[in-house]
Amino acid sequence: MSTDNSRRTPTRAREVRLTKPLEGALTLDHFEVVETPVPDPADGEVLVRTDHLSLAAAYADLMRPGCPLPVPPFLPGERLGGAALGTVVRSASAELAAGDLVQSMSGWSEYSSGPADRYVKLAPDLFPSPVYFLSQGPTAYYGMADIARVGAGDVVYVSGAAGGVGSLAGQIARCRGAARVIGSAGSKEKAAYLVDELGYDAAFDYHDGPVVDRLRDLAPDGIDVFFDNVGGEQFEAAVQVASPHARFALCGALAGQIGDASAGHPRLDLMRAITRHLEIRPFACYHLPEQISAWYEHFARWYHEGRFVFPHTVVEGGLPRAPEAMLALLDGRYRGNVSVRVGD
Amino acid sequence: MSTDNSRRTPTRAREVRLTKPLEGALTLDHFEVVETPVPDPADGEVLVRTDHLSLAAAYADLMRPGCPLPVPPFLPGERLGGAALGTVVRSASAELAAGDLVQSMSGWSEYSSGPADRYVKLAPDLFPSPVYFLSQGPTAYYGMADIARVGAGDVVYVSGAAGGVGSLAGQIARCRGAARVIGSAGSKEKAAYLVDELGYDAAFDYHDGPVVDRLRDLAPDGIDVFFDNVGGEQFEAAVQVASPHARFALCGALAGQIGDASAGHPRLDLMRAITRHLEIRPFACYHLPEQISAWYEHFARWYHEGRFVFPHTVVEGGLPRAPEAMLALLDGRYRGNVSVRVGD
Repeated sequence: MSTDNSRRTPTRAREVRLTKPLEGALTLDHFEVVETPVPDPADGEVLVRTDHLSLAAAYADLMRPGCPLPVPPFLPGERLGGAALGTVVRSASAELAAGDLVQSMSGWSEYSSGPADRYVKLAPDLFPSPVYFLSQGPTAYYGMADIARVGAGDVVYVSGAAGGVGSLAGQIARCRGAARVIGSAGSKEKAAYLVDELGYDAAFDYHDGPVVDRLRDLAPDGIDVFFDNVGGEQFEAAVQVASPHARFALCGALAGQIGDASAGHPRLDLMRAITRHLEIRPFACYHLPEQISAWYEHFARWYHEGRFVFPHTVVEGGLPRAPEAMLALLDGRYRGNVSVRVGD
Repeated sequence: MSTDNSRRTPTRAREVRLTKPLEGALTLDHFEVVETPVPDPADGEVLVRTDHLSLAAAYADLMRPGCPLPVPPFLPGERLGGAALGTVVRSASAELAAGDLVQSMSGWSEYSSGPADRYVKLAPDLFPSPVYFLSQGPTAYYGMADIARVGAGDVVYVSGAAGGVGSLAGQIARCRGAARVIGSAGSKEKAAYLVDELGYDAAFDYHDGPVVDRLRDLAPDGIDVFFDNVGGEQFEAAVQVASPHARFALCGALAGQIGDASAGHPRLDLMRAITRHLEIRPFACYHLPEQISAWYEHFARWYHEGRFVFPHTVVEGGLPRAPEAMLALLDGRYRGNVSVRVGD
């Protein structure tokens, strides 16, 4: 069986490859755009036109030799990976039909093909735009709900709060009953955005004096939950203001992902951590099916109840814009989740 | 009502006081021996002759100004505190009678008195010697059982394994079914002692090259549980060899308790901790009644089954030896739990 929606499908299309392993800072020299043939799907396969490509800071880690993440690294000479949304244009599988909206890990390409079971069919009407499906929501939800177990009355601090994970994490804490949600970000404009648009109770620019002083001002009775996307000084300050039995969900080390990795390695004040009985849980979320389901279930409900916004940036201009968008993301120039519009 | 066992009780007796707050290293100048009157117990009180005084590294923390431990600090000009075993010599309480063996937090003195409910009556026949009651067992048990949740098949690493907590922690892990228990200590002799007398599967002197190299040799498949009494390099090495979802019970920071506190503050390699999904739990045990009960229940059973030894050092010579014994303890010169014999 075969369905076809591809009269205008080209015979060749572009993909972006990594040119060399990443050591130090990421530059445009690490990317090249290459044209390759668009394959015909074999039996059981589909051909998918990429509509949106997701970007995340962790992609830089995957470009580094020896990256410890237990997912396939991005290798020089090969197409860059990552999550993408697309539309099935040809199907040789009973599972999917031409026109279906699908999500996959097909990476930085204008077209992809493969076995139908690598593509997850999405409900196009669940959200105002398909890009609502491309987010770091499963990570934010797993971290806040399962790792930090945030609940009623908690005072919560989120670092890197305007980023893809952080912009969702603070809202999740609020929807789960947190008493007060504090965020930090890399500029005054982002700090204002956290309070004005994402419902944070307070926020600050972490360039604005020692983080520990700002936290003492904004959380004079201490913090119960810390959701960290940054590491370094953020972590050290949170230890100093943590309440007894505070839970730390350590999600990212942005301070070390941009350039020198050891910049993200904080000192752990053991005596304070011991006397406060902290629970420190570094974690990674690999978007397991149950983690994805838990996120969509809560996100959809809170969104349709009008309690949740989806902060995102769509970079226009097609696949060739993806490399510079990746640099801009690491430079902290976006808010919320970031995707590149690949299709028209 | 009143019982009396005190015909030979003196009218004056000695106690040890802190002379000045501890900054930097502990010296004999921090202590003075003072003679004070032995009081008569008021109604509801008892007079107790101290038989043994317990010593622990944490006592040095309690001498430092601003110590964050949520227990009363040791103040200059006052008697040093801490756990002691004694015998009731006069009782004006129905709860206790002369001759009873009791434990309390009466501190560094030859005699103490106070309300009977500050003294816990012990069963003198449960163990070969009353000093078996003076230990850091509640901390070791709580850390291994409740914090690290050690169980069948775990590969366990204990730092500071010949100390008061560590010498019990490794045995607890073995009795709970750990597959392999590895320890480190500050000399070759102590390392041999861990294997020969405490049943450790392997041990090393942490002066013998980088800790991470020794751990890679001794635990080639990684560690599932880390019980840390030291901090610093020990912690950093354990992060590098931790298996996915390893549990870290952080009990002490000896590297920082002896002299410069920040020496005990390890760097946390966030990327590795995140990708290994470590559970890092600094904790303190304040010997709550249920923590004490849990320890004695298991200790007594394992001891009488012949599966557990009680490593301890009794310093002879009376109360005036306590200051130098405390310095020797911080210098790592003892094995197991340490007490000073105060009575005859």
